[in-house]
Order: sequence, then C-alpha cells, then structure tokens
Amino acid sequence: MTVITSVDVTDVRFPTSLSADGSDAMNKDGDYSAAYVHLRTDDPDLAGYGFTFTIGRGNDICALAARDRAQPLVGRDVAEITDDLGGIYRELASDSQLRWLGPEKGVEHLAMAAVMNAVWDLAARRAGKPLWQLLTDMTPEQMADVCDLRYLSDALTRDEVVSMLSELAPTRAARVAELSQTGYPCYTTSAGWLGYSDEKLRRLCQEAVDDGYSHIKLKVGANLEDDVRRCRIAREVIGDDVHLMIDANQVWDVPQAIEWVQALAEFRPLWIEEPTSPDDVLGHAAVRKAVAPIGVASGEHGMNRVLFKQMFQAEALDYCQLDSARLASLNEIIPVFLMAKKYGVPVCPHAGGVGLCELVQHLSVFDYVAVSGSLENRVTEYVDHLHEHFVDACIVRDGAYALPQAPGYSAQMHAESVAEYAYPDGGYWSARV
Amino acid sequence: MTVITSVDVTDVRFPTSLSADGSDAMNKDGDYSAAYVHLRTDDPDLAGYGFTFTIGRGNDICALAARDRAQPLVGRDVAEITDDLGGIYRELASDSQLRWLGPEKGVEHLAMAAVMNAVWDLAARRAGKPLWQLLTDMTPEQMADVCDLRYLSDALTRDEVVSMLSELAPTRAARVAELSQTGYPCYTTSAGWLGYSDEKLRRLCQEAVDDGYSHIKLKVGANLEDDVRRCRIAREVIGDDVHLMIDANQVWDVPQAIEWVQALAEFRPLWIEEPTSPDDVLGHAAVRKAVAPIGVASGEHGMNRVLFKQMFQAEALDYCQLDSARLASLNEIIPVFLMAKKYGVPVCPHAGGVGLCELVQHLSVFDYVAVSGSLENRVTEYVDHLHEHFVDACIVRDGAYALPQAPGYSAQMHAESVAEYAYPDGGYWSARV
Repeated sequence: MTVITSVDVTDVRFPTSLSADGSDAMNKDGDYSAAYVHLRTDDPDLAGYGFTFTIGRGNDICALAARDRAQPLVGRDVAEITDDLGGIYRELASDSQLRWLGPEKGVEHLAMAAVMNAVWDLAARRAGKPLWQLLTDMTPEQMADVCDLRYLSDALTRDEVVSMLSELAPTRAARVAELSQTGYPCYTTSAGWLGYSDEKLRRLCQEAVDDGYSHIKLKVGANLEDDVRRCRIAREVIGDDVHLMIDANQVWDVPQAIEWVQALAEFRPLWIEEPTSPDDVLGHAAVRKAVAPIGVASGEHGMNRVLFKQMFQAEALDYCQLDSARLASLNEIIPVFLMAKKYGVPVCPHAGGVGLCELVQHLSVFDYVAVSGSLENRVTEYVDHLHEHFVDACIVRDGAYALPQAPGYSAQMHAESVAEYAYPDGGYWSARV
Repeated sequence: MTVITSVDVTDVRFPTSLSADGSDAMNKDGDYSAAYVHLRTDDPDLAGYGFTFTIGRGNDICALAARDRAQPLVGRDVAEITDDLGGIYRELASDSQLRWLGPEKGVEHLAMAAVMNAVWDLAARRAGKPLWQLLTDMTPEQMADVCDLRYLSDALTRDEVVSMLSELAPTRAARVAELSQTGYPCYTTSAGWLGYSDEKLRRLCQEAVDDGYSHIKLKVGANLEDDVRRCRIAREVIGDDVHLMIDANQVWDVPQAIEWVQALAEFRPLWIEEPTSPDDVLGHAAVRKAVAPIGVASGEHGMNRVLFKQMFQAEALDYCQLDSARLASLNEIIPVFLMAKKYGVPVCPHAGGVGLCELVQHLSVFDYVAVSGSLENRVTEYVDHLHEHFVDACIVRDGAYALPQAPGYSAQMHAESVAEYAYPDGGYWSARV
C-alpha cells in the first residue's frame, strides 16, 4: 500500500511586474504566482503536483488555505483516494466551517482547486497516463461519479451526463488520433499586453502571424483613444483573415461596456472578453444583446459551476473561458464542459498566468474527444511565458498545443524554480525583499 | 492630529457547537467566531472596532487577510480617514493583486468587511454618535460619496441615490422620534435550531410568543418528516396570528426546493430562506415563481452588491437579508438598501452569529429613517446568544431593538472575552486544544 505522507504548499512568485507582462486595464502590476501543492507519498517515484494561480499579494493566504484543506489527505492510501476521485472531492468540500467562508468562491475555492489539481495529477501519474487520457479512458458512468452536480439539476442531471458522454464514447479514438496529428488550436495573448509600446505591439503581432496563429488578443479598456490606435495597428498587421479579440478585464459598468465596444466595432473583434464584473450574469446578457455580432467571452473569474450554469441559462456568453485553477478541478470543470455542450456554447479555456497553459491543454483535448466532438469556434488561450519552470512544459507548434505525452497533469515545477522563487525566502526574493 | 498607531486582529472563537446553538441542515457544528479588528490610535480614548463573522475553522485565514488589508491605515490621520470614508474604502479595495483572489467575494471580502466595519466604528466614535446617527446626519450628497456604485449603473446611478435620499431627508427626524419610542421590530431564530429536541422547540416557541415576538423562524431541510412534525408543533404553539418562517440554509437544488416547500405549505410559512445556492439568482427566481404566495428570502451569503443587483433585476427575492459582516460595510450596504427600495423589496437583515445583532440594529434604523421610510413587511433577525461579550450589547424589548445610544457601531467586545476566547492561545482554548 502506498500512502500520502505529507503535503507541502509553497508560495511561489515570479517578478512579472518588472516587464509589464500580464498588464491590463485592471491589473497593472501583477507578479504571477502559484500556491503550489506537492503531495508526497512513501513511494519515491510517485507524487502529485497542483496549484492555483494568483498575481502576487495574498498568494500566502491561498497557500495557507490549501495547506489546511489538504490535511485530510495525509496518511491516506493513494489507491483509495485516486480510485474514488468523486469521494475525496466531496470529503474535502464538505467541511461546513470552511464552506461558510465562500461558499465555493474566493480564497477557499482557489485553495480547493490547488489541492484537487494535485490529487488529479497524482491519479494520472499513478495510472501512467497524461491527464487527458486518464479522462478519456473513463466510462461515462465513472465520469458521472466524479462530477459535482450539486445545484445543477435544473440544468444538468446525472442521466444527461451519462447520455451525453455515451453518445461520443464510440468515436473517441478517432479524435485522439486526429489531435495527435494536428494538436489543439490555440491563440496568443502575448502580443497585446496593455503596458507594451506601439512598436512592440506591431512586432509581436507580426511574429504571431508568422508563427501560424489565426487568432490574436489585445487588452483594452484603459483609454479609448489608445484602444482605437492599438486595434488599428493590430488590424493593419494581421490583415482581414486573422481574428482579433479584445479583453477589458472587468473595467466597465454595463452601459459603458456597450458604448466602448461599439466604438471599437470597426475593427471587427471576434469577442469582447470580461466586459464587466465577472459575477454579473444579467449584465453579460445585456452586453451580448447590444454588441452582437461581436461575441461576449467570460469565465477566467467565473467563481464556480453555479455561475456558469446561470451564464448558460441566461444566454450571456458566446464563448466560455473556464479557468483550470479557479474552478475546483475536474470535479467541477467536467460539469461546466457538459453544460456548455448542452447550451451550445464553445469552451475556450483561459490560460496564461503560471502553468495554466500546461493544465488547459489537457482540458481542451478532453473536451474535443469526450464532450464537444467539435473544433468549431474553439481556440484555447496560450501565453508564451514562464514555461521554463515546468518539467513537462506544453509544446505549441503552428498555433496548436501538441498532445501532452507525459503522465500527469503537467503541473510539476522544477525544484530549482520553486526554491529560487519561493516567497519571501527563496533565492530571488531574499535578495530583494 | 490623532493617528492610527496599530491594527490588532484576533481570531476569537466561541464553542457554540457544544450546545447545538446555530445548528442547521448545512451547518451542524459551527463554533461561532469573529475575526476581530481593533484599530488603536494615539488618543487613549479613541479606537475603532469591527469584525467579520465565521463559524470556526478558517477564521485564522480571515484574520490574516484582515491584517494585510488594514496595513495602509497604520500611521494615518484619523480625521483624514474618517472625513472621507468613500476615499479610504476605494483605497483599500483598489489593491489589484488582492482583487484577483475574489474579486469582492470570499475570504478577502470578509476581511474587507471586518476592516471597514472598524473604520466606520472609529468614525462614529470620533463623532460621538451611534453609527445610525452618523449616517442619518449625513446629507444625501455626502452619502452618495461613500457609496460604491461600481458595476451598478444599469440599476442605480449617483443621481438616483441623491434623489431617493433627498425625498426622505426632510422627515428623518420624525422617524427617529418614532423609533426612540417603539424600537425597530425584530424576530427570533433562537427557538428553531435543528439540533434542538421537540420539547425544547415547543418551550422556546412559547417563550418567544410570551416575549412579544410576532415572527418566529425554524430551520428545515434535513429530513422532510421531521420538518412536518416541527412545523406542526410550532404552528400549534404560536397559533395563526404569529408568522412562521422557515430556513433551509442552501441544502436543496432548485427542483427539490420547490417540492419540499410545497410539502410544508400547509403550515403557511411567510418565507422560505436560502432555498438553494446563494449564488443562484435565476434559481431563486424560479423557486419564487413556483412557491408563491410563500415568499423567498436570501442574502446572508449574498457575496457582494453585484449579486444583490441581479437578485433585484431578476425579481428573485421577496425579502433581502443582507449581511453586515459579509458585504464590505456601509460603502456597499447603503447601495444595496437603495436598490432594494427602488425595486420594492423590503430589507430584513441577517443577524445572529457573533455580534451581528449589535451591527444590524444600526442598519435597520438607518434604512427606516433615511431610505425606506416604511416598516411594512420589515423585521430584523435577532438571536439571543453571545451578547454578554459586547460592551454595548443590543437591547431587545417586546420584539423590538431599542435605539442604540452609545457612540460607535456597537462592535466592541469586552477585552476579557477576547482574551478568554482567542484561538488557540486564549484561556478557554489553551486548556482544550
């Protein structure tokens, strides 16, 4: 019997604010960070890694919450845990005292995401499979067992889960074979951070086109005049055939969002992302109605499955951008994929940050193979930074994520990176703080 | 010049789980707790006290978050802070790195509530007025300046705030005079905790009627047969003229909520409280439509003003139960009161917990005097426990809160209580943990 012997949680922060990487209208100086969970076992060759993503201050609070949340795992049989991934999720989530602090939102939910991401990574490593394959090898009934369907039954029942998954199960292998040739399509945000100069924007847009991207995203929302100029530059460089997306990172009220997006309509954006508060289901629905045919995208701050359920019910989204480190791992993410399918909304997961690209590639492969069966209107975010810190970094070629091959959820960081960027005692920070 | 010299935040926990006080279908064993903020100044006679309320584990995490959030206050001029309560709110809320952890929800928002409650307490103490009077002495424009209206402009504009407040301003004094005679009506939840025996339930219902209460609330949702029996007992004891409310504490999915409430309809509940996830605006609207004329009440877990805005827009609530320690103090609470008025929903604040009764009495007085001008369908929660720990404990007579007289927000605990119940090092816990 292999046993989980300890849970180490490290506050890891990268000084991205120095280069304005990641700068947008709401978040001007983020230091991309991870509350990084390492589940150790008494088998030296078996461990689980997971994290949630933050942008600096408060990462210590998430780390503390993850440490507390993970305590019930210590001393437990790895087989028992990983053979019942629905059971361990429900056990960890059922702490009613911690539930009061949300429920299912904010710091406690980010911590739950970090811990369950590590548990899923452990399960995939134990099985010797990349996470997407662990998932696509599960039967529809096994998958229904891991789903958290609480509060969803007015939109998605267990019977529907099984029937939707069963429909595509016979053809899964063909789609795996296809993706192993083509990869899963992605787009880049690396070009358009708000803090970049016009020259840098122009150069990065050109590089993105040269690298084969068919979609490029720009940050907007700080100043309309700047946005008009930057969108014009981008459109000039990328031409008419490449899609341009714009992202306001929640800076607008609903009426202002409508006005601003209409002022940028001449640049034919495919979508406006996070036009207003991520909690505002009805607000997103109102913006969507007003700015069509420009689409509305949101979800990186979508706090839980109940929020997404309402976004679908209210027809508030054209693109669902669920987040792999904000939702409580696959147990909550799979039901969101299934609801998206049922309501006809393509899922284009949020990525970037620290390691989010490493995670979402598994999710998008799973989506195509087991849930959606379609690549239409689907493109997953990719940002080209911080990958050097990951042992199984994602590989992107010709605007597509290559199918991950290594066992696990690709969430493991190099031990040297963790040691160097641990806050405040790692090598990098201790020399500066 | 008086300066804020330090911020002490204490994790205070009371062992309420021992007596099943506060037990309900979701929360079986809460230890009622406060992340308790003490703003010290260099004037020994001036301080500010505030808190957020939790039910045990994780209170340390809220305390840590409150300590971080309050740091910008240290060294600052008390006059500068308390003369611009909108400015200091926006300053504390504007930390974009901490914002990522919500935004405006969960642990970070609870911490913001604790800190801003202490700032408002400080302002009222400095003015030598109970908080409700500090508020009702403000002009409509001053009050608009403290409101956080971000993300609300599709439901409430600054002009509307000023105009709504101006309408009732000339008659404020008459309503203050009235309340100083009658107090503000309240109801009791002390009778109906789920963990109590039938005999205790019967006795407490009788005592509540004898004490002059016209409204009594029971916890439901764990077992339908038990609920039928308990509602029958309550109705027998209180008769037809006293209102019975029921509270499910979020245990149901939407279809189940509808079915269960319909099964209890024969006992004529005034409202069903928290029938499902507190995030589910559309779900509350669906339940409300299905169970009318039984009302739907929710709000104690209403995470922020954007949630309440949608609850009003979707016509999801008959009663708004905003929480004084979950919303970010008056800056966010005042806009919710104003939206409730505009959309015609009475506010019946959530209380109980630790010190929530002490806070909400000020809010309800403010509401009647400055916003609603009506007592119709309005009744504020009262739970008779833990008041002995507060220096200016609320006074309830004949089913009404007496108008608070002492300067401040009534949030100060006795130093002995804080020392005894500090976790884990206070006298009570160090003997047990």
